[in-house]
Amino acid sequence: MHPGLADRWNRHCDSIERALLASLPECGDCPPRLREAMEYSLMAGGKRLRPVLTLFACEACGGTAAEAIPAACALEMVHTYSLIHDDLPAMDDDDLRRGRPTNHKQFGEALAILAGDALLTRAFEIVAAGVRPADVAAACCADLAAAAGAAGMVGGQVADLEAEDLAPSGDQDVDGRHLVAIHRRKTGALIACAASLGGRVAGINEETRLSLAAFGRNVGLAFQIADDLLDRTGDRDRMGKGVGKDAALGKLTYPGLYGVEESRRKAAALVDAACSAVEPLGPAGEPLTALARFVLERDH
Amino acid sequence: MHPGLADRWNRHCDSIERALLASLPECGDCPPRLREAMEYSLMAGGKRLRPVLTLFACEACGGTAAEAIPAACALEMVHTYSLIHDDLPAMDDDDLRRGRPTNHKQFGEALAILAGDALLTRAFEIVAAGVRPADVAAACCADLAAAAGAAGMVGGQVADLEAEDLAPSGDQDVDGRHLVAIHRRKTGALIACAASLGGRVAGINEETRLSLAAFGRNVGLAFQIADDLLDRTGDRDRMGKGVGKDAALGKLTYPGLYGVEESRRKAAALVDAACSAVEPLGPAGEPLTALARFVLERDH
Repeated sequence: MHPGLADRWNRHCDSIERALLASLPECGDCPPRLREAMEYSLMAGGKRLRPVLTLFACEACGGTAAEAIPAACALEMVHTYSLIHDDLPAMDDDDLRRGRPTNHKQFGEALAILAGDALLTRAFEIVAAGVRPADVAAACCADLAAAAGAAGMVGGQVADLEAEDLAPSGDQDVDGRHLVAIHRRKTGALIACAASLGGRVAGINEETRLSLAAFGRNVGLAFQIADDLLDRTGDRDRMGKGVGKDAALGKLTYPGLYGVEESRRKAAALVDAACSAVEPLGPAGEPLTALARFVLERDH
Repeated sequence: MHPGLADRWNRHCDSIERALLASLPECGDCPPRLREAMEYSLMAGGKRLRPVLTLFACEACGGTAAEAIPAACALEMVHTYSLIHDDLPAMDDDDLRRGRPTNHKQFGEALAILAGDALLTRAFEIVAAGVRPADVAAACCADLAAAAGAAGMVGGQVADLEAEDLAPSGDQDVDGRHLVAIHRRKTGALIACAASLGGRVAGINEETRLSLAAFGRNVGLAFQIADDLLDRTGDRDRMGKGVGKDAALGKLTYPGLYGVEESRRKAAALVDAACSAVEPLGPAGEPLTALARFVLERDH
């Protein structure tokens, strides 16, 4: 990572970690074990790509990182809930996440489902009560719900599960369109929303917001390709989860469909498209372009 | 049910059913099978207590039923998602709901979890995008999230699951407080929110909103006692689900703790308290008091 980007990223990560911890429900009406299960997954580390992107987008549009913190925390909560539910035995049935037992391995299935539900719900509470003015809060809630819901992330997860039951068609164009359709929703929609919410908080116009969303969609797809490549070529210890699992499941992936080299080329083209989308922001957009380029270099 | 109440309830139910159907995601980006699973549980009928209460509360405060429809639909979606997740094998493991197979029996566990997630998410989208003005929308989202989340409905479900592993203390006061603490969150918080949101949409002041919430909390607890009584004394065909299950599980219930007669008396006292809370609304509040009294008479 570029040293300037790394400094900025780490600084933002620290504020996000503190705000996430503070945003968990107080014990009192919340059963302690539920809070523990929520905290276990929410505070498990990770790159915090989505909330960092929200802060970068807000700053690139003239806002401050501080005012984007509630939206940033909400994005990370929605992302965390989706990981908890995706790991469940009925879904991807994963035992390991970020080098630790998955939530249901640690707390049991019932509590894992409910901790996910509570994180999703808390995300909307934080945006609705923490983003100001209120019309921006309402717009952010609507955006976040659209990105996370049936036509967004949840829809993408359903499409991904359905794809497991289908043999690839063998036609590269058909399978490629199918793959994009899955990941545009499963990963892309929430990353696009992370950028868009940062802009909304800064009070930008609709044209700039659409540019930020386009940036996020392209970064999101590039990120997914990088993820597929890491599953193919990555190192289990560094990843903190099983690798080679997609191939073992016969899952449709970018390297499976296009090979490693062509997948890398596609990811680079998406990053270029992302950078073009935020060109109108000028030098203020540089942290965003640096973040996009970093997606290509990530090794875990 | 009082004929005047029944007419009004049925008329509102019709609008709610139409609005719920229209509020499901369009096919397009939403996988058809996901929409089907959402619709299966959302359109399974039932009394629609929560959304009808929202409409009644809005009208009692000088608003129109039409303007409360988005909030009403959101309440029913949150309630439906909670039933889908509560029925899962990892939770209550129920096969039957309203006389039909539960969502996971019909669609499989993965899709049932995701359909619940999508309904919860959609509820916030509908409030954020459908309630106006925007500051009321943001306040409604925050209220709904607080009622549905870790310190509300989800917290109550966790407490209820934890209580299954505990033998009752044998001290009626201790067990009684524990029971109230569970149901205040598990059932009461969302019913209180249904009343409160109806008032918010009508633009009431905070004092009246708190009265409506107190009304809803008391109705919610009375409703839960009625539910426990029906599980004890109800008729399986009419209920559309297994009865006697709580007792079989050794679960703490009102009739188990206080006996049938004393439980009926407690429910009646709660309904009286609910009616007192909305007395300041005058004759405009009559549908609310009729609804509260109906809770005592329900037989399914």
